[in-house]
Amino acid sequence: MTTSRIAAPNLRSRIMSAEDAAALITSGSTVGMSGFTGSGYPKAVPLALAARIETEHAAGRAFRVRVWTGASTGPELDGALAKADGIEFRLPYNSDPVAREKINRGEMEYFDMHLSQVAPMAWQGFLGPLDTAVIEVTGIREDGSLIPSSSVGNNKTWLDRASKVILEVNRWQNAALEGMHDIYYGTRLPPNRVPIPLIRPDDRIGQPYLACDPDKIVAIIETDAPDRNLPFAAPDESAQAIAGHLMEFFRHEVAIGRLPASLLPIQSGVGNIANAVLTGLVDSPFEDLAAYTEVIQDGMLDLLDAGKLRMASATAFSLSPEAAARINANMGAYRSRMILRPQEISNHPELIRRLGCIAMNGLIEADIYGNVNSTHVMGSRIQNGIGGSGDFARNAFVSIFMTPSTAKGGKISAIVPQAAHVDHIAQDVQVIVTEQGLADLRGLSPKQRAKLIIERCAHPTYRPMLEEYYARARAGSYGQQSPSLPGEALSWHQRFIETGSMLA
Amino acid sequence: MTTSRIAAPNLRSRIMSAEDAAALITSGSTVGMSGFTGSGYPKAVPLALAARIETEHAAGRAFRVRVWTGASTGPELDGALAKADGIEFRLPYNSDPVAREKINRGEMEYFDMHLSQVAPMAWQGFLGPLDTAVIEVTGIREDGSLIPSSSVGNNKTWLDRASKVILEVNRWQNAALEGMHDIYYGTRLPPNRVPIPLIRPDDRIGQPYLACDPDKIVAIIETDAPDRNLPFAAPDESAQAIAGHLMEFFRHEVAIGRLPASLLPIQSGVGNIANAVLTGLVDSPFEDLAAYTEVIQDGMLDLLDAGKLRMASATAFSLSPEAAARINANMGAYRSRMILRPQEISNHPELIRRLGCIAMNGLIEADIYGNVNSTHVMGSRIQNGIGGSGDFARNAFVSIFMTPSTAKGGKISAIVPQAAHVDHIAQDVQVIVTEQGLADLRGLSPKQRAKLIIERCAHPTYRPMLEEYYARARAGSYGQQSPSLPGEALSWHQRFIETGSMLA
Repeated sequence: MTTSRIAAPNLRSRIMSAEDAAALITSGSTVGMSGFTGSGYPKAVPLALAARIETEHAAGRAFRVRVWTGASTGPELDGALAKADGIEFRLPYNSDPVAREKINRGEMEYFDMHLSQVAPMAWQGFLGPLDTAVIEVTGIREDGSLIPSSSVGNNKTWLDRASKVILEVNRWQNAALEGMHDIYYGTRLPPNRVPIPLIRPDDRIGQPYLACDPDKIVAIIETDAPDRNLPFAAPDESAQAIAGHLMEFFRHEVAIGRLPASLLPIQSGVGNIANAVLTGLVDSPFEDLAAYTEVIQDGMLDLLDAGKLRMASATAFSLSPEAAARINANMGAYRSRMILRPQEISNHPELIRRLGCIAMNGLIEADIYGNVNSTHVMGSRIQNGIGGSGDFARNAFVSIFMTPSTAKGGKISAIVPQAAHVDHIAQDVQVIVTEQGLADLRGLSPKQRAKLIIERCAHPTYRPMLEEYYARARAGSYGQQSPSLPGEALSWHQRFIETGSMLA
Repeated sequence: MTTSRIAAPNLRSRIMSAEDAAALITSGSTVGMSGFTGSGYPKAVPLALAARIETEHAAGRAFRVRVWTGASTGPELDGALAKADGIEFRLPYNSDPVAREKINRGEMEYFDMHLSQVAPMAWQGFLGPLDTAVIEVTGIREDGSLIPSSSVGNNKTWLDRASKVILEVNRWQNAALEGMHDIYYGTRLPPNRVPIPLIRPDDRIGQPYLACDPDKIVAIIETDAPDRNLPFAAPDESAQAIAGHLMEFFRHEVAIGRLPASLLPIQSGVGNIANAVLTGLVDSPFEDLAAYTEVIQDGMLDLLDAGKLRMASATAFSLSPEAAARINANMGAYRSRMILRPQEISNHPELIRRLGCIAMNGLIEADIYGNVNSTHVMGSRIQNGIGGSGDFARNAFVSIFMTPSTAKGGKISAIVPQAAHVDHIAQDVQVIVTEQGLADLRGLSPKQRAKLIIERCAHPTYRPMLEEYYARARAGSYGQQSPSLPGEALSWHQRFIETGSMLA
């Protein structure tokens, strides 16, 4: 019965314990793991590897690895390995609190990448060799092909590029996932790249299974462990206000003919505000919606259930335990309306531009010109990473950023004189929404943008401070394209660092 | 004889003077003009319009227009209109010194855009209505189709979107340009966009002529005036050193198999350094090269003449008078090896990613983490604009930025603690080259990048200052992902503004 998920007879001999599999990973090597937003990551081998590393360290021996994934994983992977001080270098995304602390203490190198570029850059040889792939799958078919798990991420690339492969076959994953995935094997290195033949989010352009050279498979581990599914927090007042402004914006755009009545494919980040927006769409007049995005979260299930969402294309799930149970109970029904793809396809600039996605992402801070910091608190402390926001924001039909206007109980303004770090340049930011209001920045010069952002988005407590700074920059700036005063442009951040508040 | 370039008999009646045509443009209206890097811009109507505006202003009447183009134009357009204080709003690019001064004094609004996004955003209705198109062409064929001029830019879109059209038929442009252009009419608004069927720079996917509804043509002006072709400055020592480092990099990449022996399609900015690099390629071992770029400049002609360059695809010429004469004398021979396309195609992210371009762009400053400022001197004073650098840098196979390590006789360091404005985030900057050396930043974390950029790229005068700042940031930063000190990160810029030098 334990082998029912491993149908390939020739592979059954490779079944072993996680400890034995972890022993095959060497110090200093690079390990490409599955996992994207806490879904489909390996749950046993990283834990066993962390235990081994702790033993080695206790014996006074150095042992660290380089870890690549799809995006964020779970405590059994990033958390355990970071806690063991076992990660020398990490890419392309992290949201684990233990790893985040290590990174921000300077104890772990982190290369925060555009998610669409991980697979191409790995193929291009820019990231160095990949020694071992550790990939969670739902099952192994008789012909050796692999039924992907609850995320696809970079699994195709890790399986193709790694010298050796370790598979975790997770019985907890629903067997009915089979058939949901669309793995496109048409990517190439230039000069041999061709158009990607996807013209609607609904299109299937690949195959439902991952391929893997069986000779590379050195270990198979059977697991039965849930994804890191976090409880869903109901949208607060601020998130609801943001969603309200956005619904009004969509209604207006449809009314004047700039958006079709079924909108355009939605890309939505995860979290409280994103879920509020999706909930807002449930009650909206828009029908026959589609999502072309990174993750399928709770709000998307609601939209599917309400008959509003025709199709959701993503690379991973990111669900609450309740939503995971809901989807698992009805996987057969959901399967025809969901597609999970490799992240090089879910995030591909070619496809995002072609489909004309409506990109909706969060931010840490925006400056008065609309440059957005998505990653570095006070300019230096990494929160998570840029993820796919750059892939979507630059190529979207319209790129929207959403945030409460303040953080830390009002001690931090999300609108600042100058962003202390920039992830999204003003050209890639067409709309900013806070609970205060929505600034439609399309077609505006920097000074026109500044006026609108301060007026519509800033919190009333910070608005006069921003107006005062801007007035002095208008009077005394070196140039007047984007007036600024370098001597004090980052003084709000400095003040927060020194006093715990941006307020003077 | 003067009508020989206007073969459509029904259009001859619309021939009039530039003054009469300029009288058809109303104050407050939006005018979409041809022109890209000083090529193919209208030369008579803008001058006549500027004269009319001066007359109106002298009579105490307000008169300004909104001006859209492909990219930069010439003194007869941006220069004359800015001098007349006739431009209320300008997009998407400017390099005219008179207009630059107006912008930096806050007297003219300027929306500096990604060049690939101008046409799509115009179609999406994000830029407002377009009243009049003023387009230079080489000739009008009997069927009313238009032979494009020495740039294509956004002409297709302006002709399609404008309510009325004014054509300048410029006899100075070589009649043998006919057949060189490839105007793709397959773009659509989402959800109806389809793959763009271009897989090599050599591919022709459209037609050689621009289409225009004859009923919209309100005026035709005959001109005989040269493009703004600027003398070519021979590469200085610094540019040659940069080119040398880059050739070594290419040789290494080919040797280890990361680049094919014919490299990949080259994108190259204009100017001294870009020409030095192209000259370096003439003497290199690389054969059968191709360019997929914005402009064909002098160095590309040299590569074509040397038999090194198979094909150059661009949207415009940007030549010295000597090179223009050379190309005009042999247009027939060059025509089969050059293609001029609309800028939405020359700069399209889909195509740049597919072709795997080698992007080579200049910069104003880079910070120690590799964030690049291409546009704003001291963070506020616009130089030209982002142009197509964002289209190429984010989507290139490898994105290279080049600059001398200092400017203003050493008073400005091109490597700074923090960029005072960001156009290219560190993720989009894989290689930085100065005359000091080359920093290969691929696959590195911010701290690893900082070490390399300071060591390889900074000028020896500024290197200890950067090392000292970085050491203090390592010790005292709020977070250690990208260590920074907001209280002094922009102090070098402030010092320059106050003292005229970044040196302490």
